[in-house]
Amino acid sequence: MHIGLIGLGRMGSNMRTRLRNAGIEVTGYDRNPDVSDVASVDEMIASLPSPRTVWVMVPAGKITDSVIEELSEKLDAGDLVIDGGNSRFTDDFTHNDLLSKKGIDYIDAGVSGGVWGLENGYGLMVGGPKEQVDRVMPVFDALRPEGPRDEGFVHAGEVGAGHYAKMVHNGIEYALMQAYAEGFELLEKRSDLLKDVPGTFKAWQRGTVVRSWLLELLVRALDEDDDLSEIEGYVEDSGEGRWTIEEAIENAVPVPTISASIFARFVSRQDDSPAMKAVAALRNQFGGHAVKKAED
Amino acid sequence: MHIGLIGLGRMGSNMRTRLRNAGIEVTGYDRNPDVSDVASVDEMIASLPSPRTVWVMVPAGKITDSVIEELSEKLDAGDLVIDGGNSRFTDDFTHNDLLSKKGIDYIDAGVSGGVWGLENGYGLMVGGPKEQVDRVMPVFDALRPEGPRDEGFVHAGEVGAGHYAKMVHNGIEYALMQAYAEGFELLEKRSDLLKDVPGTFKAWQRGTVVRSWLLELLVRALDEDDDLSEIEGYVEDSGEGRWTIEEAIENAVPVPTISASIFARFVSRQDDSPAMKAVAALRNQFGGHAVKKAED
Amino acid sequence: MHIGLIGLGRMGSNMRTRLRNAGIEVTGYDRNPDVSDVASVDEMIASLPSPRTVWVMVPAGKITDSVIEELSEKLDAGDLVIDGGNSRFTDDFTHNDLLSKKGIDYIDAGVSGGVWGLENGYGLMVGGPKEQVDRVMPVFDALRPEGPRDEGFVHAGEVGAGHYAKMVHNGIEYALMQAYAEGFELLEKRSDLLKDVPGTFKAWQRGTVVRSWLLELLVRALDEDDDLSEIEGYVEDSGEGRWTIEEAIENAVPVPTISASIFARFVSRQDDSPAMKAVAALRNQFGGHAVKKAED
Amino acid sequence: MHIGLIGLGRMGSNMRTRLRNAGIEVTGYDRNPDVSDVASVDEMIASLPSPRTVWVMVPAGKITDSVIEELSEKLDAGDLVIDGGNSRFTDDFTHNDLLSKKGIDYIDAGVSGGVWGLENGYGLMVGGPKEQVDRVMPVFDALRPEGPRDEGFVHAGEVGAGHYAKMVHNGIEYALMQAYAEGFELLEKRSDLLKDVPGTFKAWQRGTVVRSWLLELLVRALDEDDDLSEIEGYVEDSGEGRWTIEEAIENAVPVPTISASIFARFVSRQDDSPAMKAVAALRNQFGGHAVKKAED
Repeated sequence: MHIGLIGLGRMGSNMRTRLRNAGIEVTGYDRNPDVSDVASVDEMIASLPSPRTVWVMVPAGKITDSVIEELSEKLDAGDLVIDGGNSRFTDDFTHNDLLSKKGIDYIDAGVSGGVWGLENGYGLMVGGPKEQVDRVMPVFDALRPEGPRDEGFVHAGEVGAGHYAKMVHNGIEYALMQAYAEGFELLEKRSDLLKDVPGTFKAWQRGTVVRSWLLELLVRALDEDDDLSEIEGYVEDSGEGRWTIEEAIENAVPVPTISASIFARFVSRQDDSPAMKAVAALRNQFGGHAVKKAED
Repeated sequence: MHIGLIGLGRMGSNMRTRLRNAGIEVTGYDRNPDVSDVASVDEMIASLPSPRTVWVMVPAGKITDSVIEELSEKLDAGDLVIDGGNSRFTDDFTHNDLLSKKGIDYIDAGVSGGVWGLENGYGLMVGGPKEQVDRVMPVFDALRPEGPRDEGFVHAGEVGAGHYAKMVHNGIEYALMQAYAEGFELLEKRSDLLKDVPGTFKAWQRGTVVRSWLLELLVRALDEDDDLSEIEGYVEDSGEGRWTIEEAIENAVPVPTISASIFARFVSRQDDSPAMKAVAALRNQFGGHAVKKAED
Repeated sequence: MHIGLIGLGRMGSNMRTRLRNAGIEVTGYDRNPDVSDVASVDEMIASLPSPRTVWVMVPAGKITDSVIEELSEKLDAGDLVIDGGNSRFTDDFTHNDLLSKKGIDYIDAGVSGGVWGLENGYGLMVGGPKEQVDRVMPVFDALRPEGPRDEGFVHAGEVGAGHYAKMVHNGIEYALMQAYAEGFELLEKRSDLLKDVPGTFKAWQRGTVVRSWLLELLVRALDEDDDLSEIEGYVEDSGEGRWTIEEAIENAVPVPTISASIFARFVSRQDDSPAMKAVAALRNQFGGHAVKKAED
Repeated sequence: MHIGLIGLGRMGSNMRTRLRNAGIEVTGYDRNPDVSDVASVDEMIASLPSPRTVWVMVPAGKITDSVIEELSEKLDAGDLVIDGGNSRFTDDFTHNDLLSKKGIDYIDAGVSGGVWGLENGYGLMVGGPKEQVDRVMPVFDALRPEGPRDEGFVHAGEVGAGHYAKMVHNGIEYALMQAYAEGFELLEKRSDLLKDVPGTFKAWQRGTVVRSWLLELLVRALDEDDDLSEIEGYVEDSGEGRWTIEEAIENAVPVPTISASIFARFVSRQDDSPAMKAVAALRNQFGGHAVKKAED
C-alpha cells in the first residue's frame, strides 16, 4: 500500500514513521522542505498509485479547509481523502460535499495517542463509506496499537462520526484530567498528614478503581518534579473541548464535569478575574468588607 | 423596653443606634471601652429589668460560645438570650441546651442587611419559643425595615430555624453575586461591541427580570470605578457559604450554583493552582504541549 | 409618532397597548386577523409616515429572518427597522447587512419584563446608529418603566449590542433563578426544623441582601401553592441561555453558575438520564453494587 | 504470619481467600456463623500469636466504632489493629487515641479494588507507625496486586493518612465515572450519526488518552446491555464522596468536577426536584410560561 501524507509536524512525522515501520509506503509533503519527501502536493499526487489515498494531518480549520479544497481540484474520481486532524465533525460534512462533487471519497479519522502514538500506536475512530474504510484497513492496522483491532479502532458511522467520537473523547479527557488534578490539590493541601503525594499516585497504578493511562502520566510527571513546583498552573485548551460543550448545549445534554474542566482552564489563564472583581466590589458595597487594591 | 447588647462592632453599634432611635433602651457592652456603655458584663446585667433580654452580637464560633457560657452563669431563669451573630444553626442547639439547664430562654436571630441596616433596617429570621419571640417583638420591630412585618421578619421555627434560614440566605447570596459577576465578565469581554458596561447594568434597574438590590449595589460600584480596575478579584468567604454546602451534602440537595460560587472564591485567592499545575503537567506528558515554567 | 408593529402575540400586543397609552400611534400587523389592525404588511407600510419605523416582535430565527427580508424589499431608504424579539446578536449583523444595502437603518432592541411589562414598563437595551436611536426615543420612552431614562434604557453600542446585552441579561437571569431554587430546596428539605418556608421567602423581601424582583415573584408563587406541589419540576430553556454559554466558550469566559443553571433544566426534562445509567452500570461492574432494573 | 479478620462480607471474605492463597493464616470472625471461622471475637483473639494483628473490615461509622472499642478492651499492649474499612480519616484519630491508651497500635488502610480485588489484588494506602507497617508487610504484600510493591501499596504517613488517601481516591473515582457517563450520553444522543456507541468505547481501550480500568468496565457493561436500557439511572453515593467535598470546603480547595459528580447522583435519586419546581414557578410568574401540572 502506498499513500500520500500532507502535514509532517509532530503528529504527522511520527505517523509516517509508524506507517513505514509497518511496511506502508508513504510519500509525505510538508511546506517545510526539511521534512518533506517531495517538493509539492502535485509531486506527491503524481507519485501515488490509482485509486489514490491522501491522509491530511494539518491544523484544523482554515488550513485543513484549504488543503481539502486543493485536493478536490487535483485528485480524481475514485480517489480518497482521509482527514486525520482535529477537525470539527460539522466541517466533515462540508469537506465531504466538496469532494463528492468530484467523485472523491472522504473519511474522517479521529486520532488519539499524542507523542506516545509512534511507540504505542494510535487509537482510531473513523467515519465514512464502508468500502473505502475496508480498502485502507492496512493503513489503520499499521497506525493502531497492537492487539485486537476493535480495541484500538472503530468504524463509528458515516462521514463525521469519527471526528464526533474524537470530540467526545477529548471532552471526557478534559474531565478526567481535572478529576486527577482536584485529587492532587486535595492531597497536597494536607501534606501535613499525607506525607507522600507522589507515592500515593504511584500506588494507585495497580488494583485501584482509578488506575488509568493518565494516572501513569501523572506519576511520570511527579517523578520529574515531585510537587510540580517547576511549572505554572496555566493551561491552554483546544477546539475539541469547546465543541463538546457547544454540542452538548445543542443537544440538551448536561455536561457539568466537562464544562467545569474547561472553565478551570479559562481561569488558569487569567491574570485577574473580572468576575471576581465584581464579587469583591459587591461584598464591599453591602458589607463594607475590605477589597484588595489592584496596586497592592 | 430595655435590653442588653454584647458586641459593639460595625453591626452591633449600628443596631444599638437603630434600636435607640426607635425608643428601645439599650445598655451595650464591648471589650473596647471606647464604645462600651458599661465597664463589664456584670454591670450590663445589673442594669436590666427582669426578665432580662441580652442580645449577643459577637463573632460566631468560640467567641460566641464563651459569651453564651458566661451568660448561662450570670443570668437567671426566665431571662432571654438572643444570638444575632452568624452562628452555625447546629451551635444553636448546644447554646440552647446550656441555657435551658438554667431555665434561660434562647432565640437565634439571623440578621441580614450589612452596613445598610442602620438606615434601611435589617431582615430578620428568628427561631425559638413563640412566647419569648412575642415578648421581644418591639426589639424586632425596631430593627426590621419599615413596611409590613412579614416582609422583613419571620419566626421560622424552633431554636436553630433562624440561623438555618440565614445560612441558606447567604448561600443564595453567594450564587446571586456570582451570577451578576459572570454577566459582568461577559459584557466586559465584548466591550468592542458593547460600549457601555456600567450603563447596561444601570439600565437593568427598572423593568427587567434581573433587577435587585445587589444589582443596585453593582451600579454603585461601577459609578465609583467604571471597569473595577482599582480592585483585585480576590474574595474571602465566610462560614455560612461553607455550611450551606455541607448541609446540602448532608441532606443530598444538589447545589451546583452555590458550590460554583464558593469554589470561584477559593480560586480567586490562589497565587497559583495546584490542580492546574497537574493538568498542565498531564498535557505536557501526553501531548508534548509546552508548559509555562514557574520562574517565567 | 406613528410606527408599525409586526407580531401581536403576548409581548407584541401588550407593547401595542402600552405604546398607545403613551400617545404613540401604532399600526399592528399579525398573521392572526383577530388581533391585527391591518390585512397585510403592505397595508401596514402604506399607513406609515416617512421615514417609516417598523418594530418587529416575532419569534427569533427563521420567522424573524423572513420578516426582515420582506421588509428589506418593501421599505425605502431612510426607513428604520427595530428588531425587538429575542434574536441572537450575531443575526443582527446579517439583518443589518441586508437592510443597509437598501439604505434602511436597523436597531436591535433587547426587551425584558415579560407579562409585567404592560403595567411596569419594559427594560430596554438597544444597539444601532445614534441618530436613529434619538429619533425614535419617544417610542423607547413609552415602553420603558417610569423613572430616570437611564435606569430602564441603555443605548449600549452599535448594531448587535442590544441583543448581546439582552442575552447576557438572560444568562444572569437563569443563574439567579437557580440560586433561589437551590435555596428553596434547602429550606424544604429541613422543614422539620424550618417550619415556614413561604414565610421565610416573604420575610426576605425587605432589608436582606437577596431581595429582588425574582424573589417577589417566588413569594407570589408560594402564596398560590405553598409547597409547589401542584407543579412539576420540568423547565424549558430558550435560545438566549444557550447562546450565553456558547459566547462564553467563544470568549474563554468561565460561567459556572450560568452553565449549571442550564444543565439543571436539561436534566429536569429527562425521563431517565443516560449518563446516570452509565454511572450505575460502572458501580455495578466494579463494586457489585445493585442497580435498579428499568422495569422496576 | 497469622492474623485475625473481623467482618466477612463481600470484601472481607474475598480478602480472607486472597490472604490464605498467599500463605497467610487467617482466623475470620463474622456475626454470621455460616461464614465465620470462630464463634466469637474472644475465640478469634485467643487463636492469635502475640503480638496479635487484627484486621477490621466492617461498615464504617458506628459498627467500626464498636468493634474498635471492643478490641481496645480485649487486646494487649503491643497488639495491632488495622482498620481496612471505609472509615473517615478523622475517625482514625479517635480510634488511635482509644487504642494507644492501652498501648495497642493502629494502622488505617484504604483498600480499593471492589469485587475484582480477589483476583487482581487490592490497591492499598496505609497510615500508621512505620515499625508496625513493616512488621505486617507480608499481609499487605499478599493483598496488593502483583508487580512492584510501590505500584499497589503506599505507606502514606501517620495514622489517618491511609483513609485520607482513600477518600481522595474515591472523590476522583466519582468524577472519572461522571466524565465517562457524560461522554456516553453525548454519543447516545447522536446515535443518528454515531452508529456504534459500544464499539466506540471498546475502541478507546488501546492507544487513546482516555484508556483506563473504568473504561474497560464500561465496555463490559455495554457488552451485556448495549444501550443500558435494562437499568435505571439511579445512583447511590457513599460517605467518601461526601467527605471529600467537606474536606475540600474545609481546606478551600475548589473541586468542581467532584462536586458535580455527587450532585448528579443526588438528582438521579429524586422523583421530582423541588429546585426545578421553583424555577418552573418563577418562569410562569414572570413570563406566563406554562407549567406542567404535577398530576400530568
